[in-house]
Amino acid sequence: MHNLLNRGFNGDFRAIGRLITLVESNSPLAKDIMKQVYPRTGKAQVIGITGSPGAGKSTFVDRLISQIKADGKKVGVIAIDPSSPFTGGAILGDRLRMQGHSLDGGVFIRSMGSRGHLGGVSKSTHEAALILDSCGFDVILIETVGVGQSEIEIVKIADTVALVLVPGMGDDVQVMKAGIMEIADVFVINKADKEGADKVASDVQLMLKMLGEKEWMPPVCLVSSYKNTGVDEVKKILDDHWRYLHTTEEGRKRRYSQLEMEVEDTLREEISQVVERAWNKRKAKGVLEELAQRMTDPYTLANEIISKIIKQQ
Amino acid sequence: MHNLLNRGFNGDFRAIGRLITLVESNSPLAKDIMKQVYPRTGKAQVIGITGSPGAGKSTFVDRLISQIKADGKKVGVIAIDPSSPFTGGAILGDRLRMQGHSLDGGVFIRSMGSRGHLGGVSKSTHEAALILDSCGFDVILIETVGVGQSEIEIVKIADTVALVLVPGMGDDVQVMKAGIMEIADVFVINKADKEGADKVASDVQLMLKMLGEKEWMPPVCLVSSYKNTGVDEVKKILDDHWRYLHTTEEGRKRRYSQLEMEVEDTLREEISQVVERAWNKRKAKGVLEELAQRMTDPYTLANEIISKIIKQQ
Repeated sequence: MHNLLNRGFNGDFRAIGRLITLVESNSPLAKDIMKQVYPRTGKAQVIGITGSPGAGKSTFVDRLISQIKADGKKVGVIAIDPSSPFTGGAILGDRLRMQGHSLDGGVFIRSMGSRGHLGGVSKSTHEAALILDSCGFDVILIETVGVGQSEIEIVKIADTVALVLVPGMGDDVQVMKAGIMEIADVFVINKADKEGADKVASDVQLMLKMLGEKEWMPPVCLVSSYKNTGVDEVKKILDDHWRYLHTTEEGRKRRYSQLEMEVEDTLREEISQVVERAWNKRKAKGVLEELAQRMTDPYTLANEIISKIIKQQ
Repeated sequence: MHNLLNRGFNGDFRAIGRLITLVESNSPLAKDIMKQVYPRTGKAQVIGITGSPGAGKSTFVDRLISQIKADGKKVGVIAIDPSSPFTGGAILGDRLRMQGHSLDGGVFIRSMGSRGHLGGVSKSTHEAALILDSCGFDVILIETVGVGQSEIEIVKIADTVALVLVPGMGDDVQVMKAGIMEIADVFVINKADKEGADKVASDVQLMLKMLGEKEWMPPVCLVSSYKNTGVDEVKKILDDHWRYLHTTEEGRKRRYSQLEMEVEDTLREEISQVVERAWNKRKAKGVLEELAQRMTDPYTLANEIISKIIKQQ
């Protein structure tokens, strides 16, 4: 493992892929890997790219990669794949376009399942991002699936969230509903060559005004991934946001609250394993029969189990 | 408290209401109340009534109450109120109709908020149902709000789930989506006097066939709450289902898995309080700064906290 870590830290793509697999699959080595990885993290900008399926996230990411590379930066991409077999095909098709970057050596691209072991999405995605960070990537792009409330979880691990919208999808309403509006640091109005893009942009501006003044007011950028216009502007804004995070109290608060959630998630997972073991032991001794016959009750039982595993505080 | 409990167990509505309020508001007495209540539970049939807003759940419940009372049974009703101020009005209006029953003494009716203290819906609703059970009610009807995925939680606490559908609402699709189809023990096609009711019934039958054979195949009943037809049939099916639960292995499994979830929910809540206290102590000592400077990592930190609160197993 030590050798594998060193090769990863030196930028060996194969070793990095192997490390992510070990952690994603919950290998017994996972915790040790993460403990070695962690002290080397905190340098990369983690950028979440979210937005509905069909908004053109993958093509936009493809263009963005080129812009970031032009700055001489190393880019890693984590593309979250939906577990659903129905939408999987189309999205994977989109992503093949990104593979062009993968071959030229500067960009590491990794697909990850959207459903993991223990509420996995954010956990293994986050750990993969930490691994990339420790292995010297300057920018890590996380492209989400774009479906459902869990999208908002990206704010737990991304420094910067870009929301990609397109004209003609009634996105404005959907966005308001999901609460994604509040977590976006930059709005990318994609397919700006299409009719209605200006309308989407002005709708977003209006909604932002309604949400009230903030220290960082999320810019709204018109982008055409197809014509490759506007992507340079987005890149500049992403740089600005990174600077903003590191020079303001707001930025410090955001990092600290992410650290908090990180520890809490880890705590929750570890403790639930301990509790589950104790509970399984009791179940094996026929405690459900006792409950069914009302010889005990859930409250007394929970207290008993907890007093067996918890030290007197 | 002892006095209050005894009055409740003897069927005093005011005392029962007070007990529910104490538990719902997380009074310091709550746990003791529930420990006294629990041994007296397990006798009542808890029936969840779910379905979209506008499906006529309240009127149906109103009719059903009359049928159950005609058998000489004591009925308790828990009506879950949406927290949303937008839909609240209409639903409360519907429910006023039920108050007729409330006045004649045989029926206890209680509204409860859909959002509680700690992920509350099912917890305080469940505790209210247990209180009614211990106070001698034979049947407890829980009318849900009918919105969102959390509806499915009703299966955690109900012995029998009735899903109310109406023609003309595109319910079939919604039902499939939410996974409620799988948890319904009886389908009530309400407003059967309206056009399209037969179509809804046959659609449901078709979907049930697609879901495959089960030991208990959920019957589909055409009901008109308005004309008061078909409600007697639903009542008979509810009785049948209660018998089914108590004479089959399937029924035993269902009760046991509910007991399991009950203990697990209690365990989760109790343990999270212990963990939170320990974590807050560490945070007060500036551990977030240490994390930000990578002097420690979340994994090491979680281990430290856990080893402080958990006994060596």
